[in-house]
Amino acid sequence: MIYLDNAATTRIDEEVLQAMLPFLREGYGNPQSQHAFGREAANAVISARDKIAYAAGCAADELYFTSGGTECGNTALKGVCSARGRGRILVSAIEHPALLESAKDMQKHGFAVDFVYPDASGRISPQSVKDALKPDTVFCAVMAANNETGVVQPVEEIGAVCREAGAFYYVDCVQSACYLPLPVGKCDAFGISAHKFYGPKGAGALYVKKGAKISRLISGGMQERGFRGGTVNAAAVVGMAEAYAKARKNAAAAAQKVGALRDGFVKRVLFEIGGASLNGGGEILPSHANISFEGCDGENILFALDMKGVAVSTGSACSAGAVTPSHVLLAMGLGESRAKSAVRFTFGKYNTADEAEKTVETLKAICAKIRARNA
Amino acid sequence: MIYLDNAATTRIDEEVLQAMLPFLREGYGNPQSQHAFGREAANAVISARDKIAYAAGCAADELYFTSGGTECGNTALKGVCSARGRGRILVSAIEHPALLESAKDMQKHGFAVDFVYPDASGRISPQSVKDALKPDTVFCAVMAANNETGVVQPVEEIGAVCREAGAFYYVDCVQSACYLPLPVGKCDAFGISAHKFYGPKGAGALYVKKGAKISRLISGGMQERGFRGGTVNAAAVVGMAEAYAKARKNAAAAAQKVGALRDGFVKRVLFEIGGASLNGGGEILPSHANISFEGCDGENILFALDMKGVAVSTGSACSAGAVTPSHVLLAMGLGESRAKSAVRFTFGKYNTADEAEKTVETLKAICAKIRARNA
Repeated sequence: MIYLDNAATTRIDEEVLQAMLPFLREGYGNPQSQHAFGREAANAVISARDKIAYAAGCAADELYFTSGGTECGNTALKGVCSARGRGRILVSAIEHPALLESAKDMQKHGFAVDFVYPDASGRISPQSVKDALKPDTVFCAVMAANNETGVVQPVEEIGAVCREAGAFYYVDCVQSACYLPLPVGKCDAFGISAHKFYGPKGAGALYVKKGAKISRLISGGMQERGFRGGTVNAAAVVGMAEAYAKARKNAAAAAQKVGALRDGFVKRVLFEIGGASLNGGGEILPSHANISFEGCDGENILFALDMKGVAVSTGSACSAGAVTPSHVLLAMGLGESRAKSAVRFTFGKYNTADEAEKTVETLKAICAKIRARNA
Repeated sequence: MIYLDNAATTRIDEEVLQAMLPFLREGYGNPQSQHAFGREAANAVISARDKIAYAAGCAADELYFTSGGTECGNTALKGVCSARGRGRILVSAIEHPALLESAKDMQKHGFAVDFVYPDASGRISPQSVKDALKPDTVFCAVMAANNETGVVQPVEEIGAVCREAGAFYYVDCVQSACYLPLPVGKCDAFGISAHKFYGPKGAGALYVKKGAKISRLISGGMQERGFRGGTVNAAAVVGMAEAYAKARKNAAAAAQKVGALRDGFVKRVLFEIGGASLNGGGEILPSHANISFEGCDGENILFALDMKGVAVSTGSACSAGAVTPSHVLLAMGLGESRAKSAVRFTFGKYNTADEAEKTVETLKAICAKIRARNA
């Protein structure tokens, strides 16, 4: 079996799991408890927060643990809307459903929603953000790198534009965190999700710049300094910290290794399979290759690859099962037929050159077969 | 070390962890993904949902997986408020902070909040709920059993009262789920948390009766039929299902064993330590013993027990660290000095008679010492 869906989730690193296991077993105390069991867990949570803060370059008390990237996005968007009471929301048309759907939810509460579109390469220009911001825009979300195409966005410049306009800027870093530094100081908030960088599912971290005006989404006890209720999952945050520190330490090497695999794969696919074209341009994460195959249905390729033991996707896993073509590719203006023929291959640190080679061969045969059938 | 804080969290059952491990390792697919890795995880999630539904006696599609009990309470209260737009909220004064703080949040959005108080035994009477419901009360929360005292509440009767008044009734079953059947059909929604019944942290389930009017709290992809976005944590829900099924299967035996330990402990403490009195009366969960020690500060007892390797708490772990006396005991009208002298001992299936005996001896010595010092 060949796993080329690392954007959907990654296999947990065994070292990460080993770091978690003591807190899944004997270190089971509630970090909030005032006794030895609680202190052991609380100390682990403190260390985990420090570790992530150090690797990210922010203060530990700017980080809030959540259940994952989707909760981060919801907390940011809804939390700012709740704190501000009224106004407009600006989201890029290529955001993850966590942001797009949260914006929709806020529409029901009287907020207006504007969209900013990427160019054909999948990039959102700072100027287009500037043009789309209105005097009463309170919140803006443009992700660090798109989850379907891997196209990297000019976060720093967009941050400057938002700051000038007085809009809270949230950066969804779920997809980028494995490879790119986090935009500390360049935005008001960002979110990451551990299972995208070889950590466990169910663990996310939300960075909120000191002094930013935002309300909580999940209230309860005094966990996370009152900003996020619920027993902190010590095992999960220990795993996330281990995974993030490792990802940052190995980022350059991983980018080179994974990028080389991906580049070799893309080169061969574009050269050897007729009518194949890469979706997205400019800077792209080392992991991503979003390719359309003229005359083929992306879903059919996915199913055929699956039959041959190769796991890929057509869009984000969060939209999977939807019959509509990718909202990201449509927003780039690529048209419905190209969007419907797209397949997302995402490489990770456990993939090998042999797997990439085999996938090219399998893909060639599948495209030929589909095209012969359609001819 | 003796762990008598099972209401705060429980040690995961090794069988539960073993059921989870395959999904923490090779079964790492995203349940939303349309390939073999995804299907494996998706099937595990389906089985887990079925298992919990079967054990609980509800339909599988009435269950939504969440990150825990606090998220369940927030989703219920805020989701009903969001769906209804306006009105009053009725919460018992002894609810968990997840509900009390959520109600406070909604106050900022124009909802009025009413409280219903327990009698001196810690029980909320259906009549007092009836009296507190107003024509525009849209939401009511009275928990199944209190987390500090273990006092069991008349959920079925309160449900009937709410139904008649047209108020959505939410039951926080976080503390009761280990021992009592879930109130399927007797309420509109309830929530449970896996780590309270020997399952993992970071896993909860929200039951919502078919057809109930409620909005989502965390939006995103099509996970949980669009009601709760975010990658489903397959390992955690597999663990929760295993833990819940086991808890239900062993409920009677566990209640007997744990209840006998607790009863023996309480009997000795009340008989052998002067000025000790049990807080709460009527039906109490087999796990709980909330005892006040006249002339002693609960915090001091907690710290002294901790020094001797015995882990207990003064209130809920979620309120721990707070210097104010328990809101639950105050609501019962027990007065500040009795509330401040309270200690919560909560037994679990891993405790032994020997541990209970040792704790009584340690406690005796501690109380004598504190009282001698204060005399």
